[in-house]
Amino acid sequence: MQKRDRLRIWTEQGNVTISQLFFNYYKMIDVKDEEAILLLHLIAFGEAGNHFPTPQNLVERTHFDENKVTNILQRLVQKGFVQIEQQIDEEGIRYEYYNFQYLWNLLLNYAEQEENSAEDDVLKVEEG
Amino acid sequence: MQKRDRLRIWTEQGNVTISQLFFNYYKMIDVKDEEAILLLHLIAFGEAGNHFPTPQNLVERTHFDENKVTNILQRLVQKGFVQIEQQIDEEGIRYEYYNFQYLWNLLLNYAEQEENSAEDDVLKVEEG
Amino acid sequence: MQKRDRLRIWTEQGNVTISQLFFNYYKMIDVKDEEAILLLHLIAFGEAGNHFPTPQNLVERTHFDENKVTNILQRLVQKGFVQIEQQIDEEGIRYEYYNFQYLWNLLLNYAEQEENSAEDDVLKVEEG
Amino acid sequence: MQKRDRLRIWTEQGNVTISQLFFNYYKMIDVKDEEAILLLHLIAFGEAGNHFPTPQNLVERTHFDENKVTNILQRLVQKGFVQIEQQIDEEGIRYEYYNFQYLWNLLLNYAEQEENSAEDDVLKVEEG
Repeated sequence: MQKRDRLRIWTEQGNVTISQLFFNYYKMIDVKDEEAILLLHLIAFGEAGNHFPTPQNLVERTHFDENKVTNILQRLVQKGFVQIEQQIDEEGIRYEYYNFQYLWNLLLNYAEQEENSAEDDVLKVEEG
Repeated sequence: MQKRDRLRIWTEQGNVTISQLFFNYYKMIDVKDEEAILLLHLIAFGEAGNHFPTPQNLVERTHFDENKVTNILQRLVQKGFVQIEQQIDEEGIRYEYYNFQYLWNLLLNYAEQEENSAEDDVLKVEEG
Repeated sequence: MQKRDRLRIWTEQGNVTISQLFFNYYKMIDVKDEEAILLLHLIAFGEAGNHFPTPQNLVERTHFDENKVTNILQRLVQKGFVQIEQQIDEEGIRYEYYNFQYLWNLLLNYAEQEENSAEDDVLKVEEG
Repeated sequence: MQKRDRLRIWTEQGNVTISQLFFNYYKMIDVKDEEAILLLHLIAFGEAGNHFPTPQNLVERTHFDENKVTNILQRLVQKGFVQIEQQIDEEGIRYEYYNFQYLWNLLLNYAEQEENSAEDDVLKVEEG
């Protein structure tokens, strides 16, 4: 196994790209840390092509047991941070996937508010 | 606040890019889930230009208190997952930053091993 | 120089993250290929912290001469694909940077249109 | 069409992540600008799951005609910047894909050299 092979392994694994909004503000929209790590795993699976990982998939990658994973997933769904959606593929087979749009919108709403209140502060200082 | 502004906020926040190796194998090299989330925050701060976030920075973004953050950071340093390094900037001022090279190499070693043992299995089947 | 150093160089260089929208649709909004490569360089410089690279910076990284670079930059500004904006930093010093919001919005408008017309086609087939 | 839909389109399109090494050094390893833009398209297609885009795919996304695309692709293969490799999928079907390992290694070799010569300069100054 030579050094060139190491670079190959590194590049072939690919990357996960996540908005800084998530790290900045997940706490502010009431995502717990253990929910955050599971969300990141769901996103990572999605970017690798598995858009509906099973609890067992998540057990293999975390220190949570299956019960705990199922609990956290249920909370994520109840709070709306992930939505389970259905689509039909080219061969007419129904499949499910996790959708994060509501989460992105909550994070963006928070960032928007913060920016507006920062602008209000600037105005107050200028007017003051 | 109009829709165009929302896209501006989204794009200006920027992204964090993390190797799939991290999500795939952090458990295998004995990174705990709470260590993983803190590592991800350190990486996110780094990509936003803050290469040596304080415990207080991390308290603001997580549900951990300062004591807990300090404990986890110490463990990360003791296990070698992060190294604190020093450099001197253009104006001659010494600054510290977190370095993750040892972590990347551990993850890569693990992936390498797994790939080799997968190849061995193939050989055994073919030879069998 | 050992293999571990190669991984360090790779990871320390960092990444450039660009929306697939750009590659999908730049042609459709009338961005030429030579404009596209220069836009990508501007974005890459920005992600590395240089938000207002000079023509000379771009000459060093491309096969264009300074005249050509200046021409393409002017076209990008005239077409609105990049805007030169000004901000004031913490020390009160005015600085300029390239902003790509109008470009992102054009790309998104195009994707939106395409998606709508795809939905219209589905409706027509269903109604037909 | 509402603002939330625009964010959905943006996030669902996904991203392309490219090492800064590419933008920094492609010129130095003799990749032409028109080869660079085509390489970026190949990488973008790959990240979207199409690892062997046809010349026609590339014609649709660039201002090059099919003849030109085929010429550039041939040059990229001849220079070794892309390799066409074969694999067999789970159903036993052979498929081809573009591999960029040689390109990544060339870029890394160049960065390595540059770093070494920068260190040599530092040593000379210190010894001088």
